[in-house]
Amino acid sequence: MSRVLILGGDGYLGWSTAMSLAAKGHEVSVVDSYLRRKIAKQTDSEALMVNPDLQERANIFRSITNISIEVFIGDLCDMELMQRVFTASTPDSIIHYAEQPSAPYSMRDYASARLTLDNNLTTTFNLIWAVIEHNPDCHIIKLGTMGEYGTPNIDIEEGWIEINHKGRSDKFLFPRAAGSLYHTTKVLDTDLLWFYVRTYGLRVTDLMQGPVYGITTRESSMDDRLLPNFHYDDIFGTVINRFLVQAISDVPLTVYGKGGQTRGYLNLIDTLQCLELAVANRVNAGELRILNQVAETFTVNELAAKIKNVGDRMGHRVQINHLPNPRKEMEDHYYNPVHTGLIDLGLSPTYLSDDIIAAMLEKINIYRNRIDPDKIMPRVNWN
Amino acid sequence: MSRVLILGGDGYLGWSTAMSLAAKGHEVSVVDSYLRRKIAKQTDSEALMVNPDLQERANIFRSITNISIEVFIGDLCDMELMQRVFTASTPDSIIHYAEQPSAPYSMRDYASARLTLDNNLTTTFNLIWAVIEHNPDCHIIKLGTMGEYGTPNIDIEEGWIEINHKGRSDKFLFPRAAGSLYHTTKVLDTDLLWFYVRTYGLRVTDLMQGPVYGITTRESSMDDRLLPNFHYDDIFGTVINRFLVQAISDVPLTVYGKGGQTRGYLNLIDTLQCLELAVANRVNAGELRILNQVAETFTVNELAAKIKNVGDRMGHRVQINHLPNPRKEMEDHYYNPVHTGLIDLGLSPTYLSDDIIAAMLEKINIYRNRIDPDKIMPRVNWN
Repeated sequence: MSRVLILGGDGYLGWSTAMSLAAKGHEVSVVDSYLRRKIAKQTDSEALMVNPDLQERANIFRSITNISIEVFIGDLCDMELMQRVFTASTPDSIIHYAEQPSAPYSMRDYASARLTLDNNLTTTFNLIWAVIEHNPDCHIIKLGTMGEYGTPNIDIEEGWIEINHKGRSDKFLFPRAAGSLYHTTKVLDTDLLWFYVRTYGLRVTDLMQGPVYGITTRESSMDDRLLPNFHYDDIFGTVINRFLVQAISDVPLTVYGKGGQTRGYLNLIDTLQCLELAVANRVNAGELRILNQVAETFTVNELAAKIKNVGDRMGHRVQINHLPNPRKEMEDHYYNPVHTGLIDLGLSPTYLSDDIIAAMLEKINIYRNRIDPDKIMPRVNWN
Repeated sequence: MSRVLILGGDGYLGWSTAMSLAAKGHEVSVVDSYLRRKIAKQTDSEALMVNPDLQERANIFRSITNISIEVFIGDLCDMELMQRVFTASTPDSIIHYAEQPSAPYSMRDYASARLTLDNNLTTTFNLIWAVIEHNPDCHIIKLGTMGEYGTPNIDIEEGWIEINHKGRSDKFLFPRAAGSLYHTTKVLDTDLLWFYVRTYGLRVTDLMQGPVYGITTRESSMDDRLLPNFHYDDIFGTVINRFLVQAISDVPLTVYGKGGQTRGYLNLIDTLQCLELAVANRVNAGELRILNQVAETFTVNELAAKIKNVGDRMGHRVQINHLPNPRKEMEDHYYNPVHTGLIDLGLSPTYLSDDIIAAMLEKINIYRNRIDPDKIMPRVNWN
């Protein structure tokens, strides 16, 4: 077992990962600036359940499990804080979730875009330098996104591609062309990390994650106050989570445009498996390992139909509404990502079954009185 | 003729371009924060000749030619200044040189790297947003660098490449893998520009320039106080300019490593031609035109031999010294960049002849008493 520092430990994935790795015996520290909570408040996009603050959640988790998670609160754009957290926690691995994660927020206006660019790049940059200066062997595990690749007309490889051109060949980063500024900041992160990996021999794993769905993990099922922040709004809600809340609250599922947009999806509990595998399987010095972290692909229409099917069976009257697409994206396109790297490391994928959909709908139903329909319709348009 | 705003107008290229375009009849405004002057002072890397400040140079230029160049002084990382300059100058084209341009400085330490990342990305970002908000038809002419591509084992196309993969194909940005953080910030600039071009239909030309050499242009030859800042130090000096000063001052030419590094070079007067062509040939809305701005390629050894040859003939005793390479780069590699785009637009390239070398040596010789040999040896190592 090892020491793991999680940047962005208050988030949907950050907090779930912290508990999961702590329960597996790792010594876990977390740090967060509550940026997402602040933006959620500013944009009327609060999560469905009440989430106690990070220290309180760590206290609740310890009171149940007797396992400690060390908590730091502060902004990692401040290099002094980054240094302090790094030297206090002496991590073997750092999991980097500390980014402004909303595509629509990043497309709202200059100020939101600037905040996204500054926060995401500066945090990644400070992390790189803390590692260079304090422990170049520390394994950086960075959450990328499948959205970095966009929707190319060729198969999406796992981060790299061999290009044959005019009789010669070389290996390059797989081309990236993202659909929002948020996703583009992750492209910039990749460029920065790859530069410092090849220049100073750092060790980096980049997990190219698709949209995640799910609420309950082994640890959060012990106490609802341990649930991750679950967003169903247009700003922070990922599509499956949004549709589930809409199905419960009799709001027609908000399919953007034709609904032919295909993406690779992942259950929250698979994210936890993937992170555990990444921590356990370090990379060599000077290696940037890139893994596509998806279990299966669906069109938005397929997702809507699946959720309608289960919702209707449970007595909801689920409708589907095709809205004008607020995003600039192709609505009918080729999409074939390779995603065998994590399976080779031992991932056992969870597929989106009717039972899983039903269990999520039941959980959300408990909180149905807290749903605010005003949070559902898209409020940012960049098409 | 049109209105042209030049960001970074105090620089080697910026000031030369300002005079050149003004002389051709364009209405030229320039803006600069004197960042390069500040860094040069901090790092003991001042230019060979004394360069009056920007307003003074504009006054001298007007007193000789009766042509005005409007001067703004300030930091374009401040969005209010960017907006003010943009609305005051109402440009048809913006030429963006306003970046921290030194690779070694960007590799010195955390603070220098952070300054380079923040300055370069924020200026580009603010420029993009000023254009989006005030005049999306404004043509952005961005100085990229051939260094963005690195030294791939395939031919370097002009910015884009068609990739055939597993029986399918698509067109992508040509892969980039730069050799310094400075060059990497230009890769990030490209990613940002391409994102906003395809999302909001901006018009961008990216000029991928090789190392530039030269001192005198048609305008600066009128008065030495109009000369561009000419650097021969390890921080800001490009390789040919450095070698010329070394030849004059009996310092052995500082070849880094084996000297097999091949790059594409360009005379300063060709840069002026290229910028004039870019201004005259606007791109369509939603187009990112990328042009490789080089005239010819040389290895460092070939450059050293050429300069030694001419220098010896002029009575200098030029020696060549292979230093341990302070940079992380291949010293023997394939290099074949396509560079026909600018020729198709009308560029008539200037080649590095013995006469041109001799003329530069003569000009530098006038200033030989100002040469400080302490500025010549590499002071930043990232190999």
